[in-house]
Amino acid sequence: MAEQGELSLKAEKISDAVVRRLPVYLRYLKELTANGVTTVSSQELGEKLNLNPAQIRKDLAYFGEFGRKGIGYDVEYLVEKIRQILKLNQVIHVGLAGAGNLGRALCNYNAFAKDNMKIVAVFDAAPEKIGEKINNLTVQPISELKETVRRLNIRVGIITVPASEAQTVANQFVDAGIEAILNFAPAILKVPDNVRIHHADFTIDLQSLAYFLDQ
Amino acid sequence: MAEQGELSLKAEKISDAVVRRLPVYLRYLKELTANGVTTVSSQELGEKLNLNPAQIRKDLAYFGEFGRKGIGYDVEYLVEKIRQILKLNQVIHVGLAGAGNLGRALCNYNAFAKDNMKIVAVFDAAPEKIGEKINNLTVQPISELKETVRRLNIRVGIITVPASEAQTVANQFVDAGIEAILNFAPAILKVPDNVRIHHADFTIDLQSLAYFLDQ
Repeated sequence: MAEQGELSLKAEKISDAVVRRLPVYLRYLKELTANGVTTVSSQELGEKLNLNPAQIRKDLAYFGEFGRKGIGYDVEYLVEKIRQILKLNQVIHVGLAGAGNLGRALCNYNAFAKDNMKIVAVFDAAPEKIGEKINNLTVQPISELKETVRRLNIRVGIITVPASEAQTVANQFVDAGIEAILNFAPAILKVPDNVRIHHADFTIDLQSLAYFLDQ
Repeated sequence: MAEQGELSLKAEKISDAVVRRLPVYLRYLKELTANGVTTVSSQELGEKLNLNPAQIRKDLAYFGEFGRKGIGYDVEYLVEKIRQILKLNQVIHVGLAGAGNLGRALCNYNAFAKDNMKIVAVFDAAPEKIGEKINNLTVQPISELKETVRRLNIRVGIITVPASEAQTVANQFVDAGIEAILNFAPAILKVPDNVRIHHADFTIDLQSLAYFLDQ
């Protein structure tokens, strides 16, 4: 069995929770490389990220044997492996619907581009927003969504429209053949089983912070 | 031993990961109550939230015996309990620094208010932004941060300034006596051990989505 085959086999069984921790590891590992750190232990990772070192070792072991006992993980190698697992070594085109404050903030948030998740089109329904420039992008009418998604091979849709419009926009993305949606609207959206949807919710961050406040 | 005392005792040992799942449960449970659903099983919760039912039962068991075998959880009771655990049954004042696109989006995102995390002040360093209205709030100069934090009993700070300014603003929040920070700037910030800091990062959401795309 080739190592690559084994990686895929194991990867299928891993939980959402593990997948969501990988970008957290990645972010910190990239900071380490930026600071010239070449090796890191699961203890150090755990301390910095407020996670259990055993959990970190278990998470990474799903994908292969990346660490060495008593030495730790090779930071650069691990960054490459996680980028590969998260498919960040390819450029993935992203379309954004809703050119309001949040939509603009996301377009301006160039961190996406660094990791190859690249917003390549912005859509809005309001006539007065069509033609506006956000960075290098021109806001397009939402009626052009389907054609643009196909032409630019957009695979991920971001929804930053008001909650009342979110399901309609999700349907349009699905109809255009999008594979995954990141929804920022405070609404639960229904999509077919073959479309992956994540709900980004600032309240989750704020609410979990509240727990740590003193009574 | 009173039940309340036991709850606190166990709660101290629970991990960040558990605390971060509670708002996710809460959001879905509130949707159930809105739809008139009174009982839910860990299986149903797991299916809807893409989590392991055993994990959900374990998470909730940290805080007490909320479920009944073969029946499930009483939705309304569970909502109340989680709100209590997350201290959402009190109003917590939040201050926001950085009145750019993201800061405005957060102020407009009234979901916060519903859960008693209430943004009560907005600060910015740019003279042209001072005095601007965002919803019912007037943008204040950042030089007023300390005095305002104390006067309004602001306990949580949100940072939506550029990465280059984030540490300075974090220091000002800390100096003003803030207990927790939610940082949206793409920068790792240093704060004293008694201040809790969470990093909100859209790339985490997008990157974990990428994993689920077909190769």
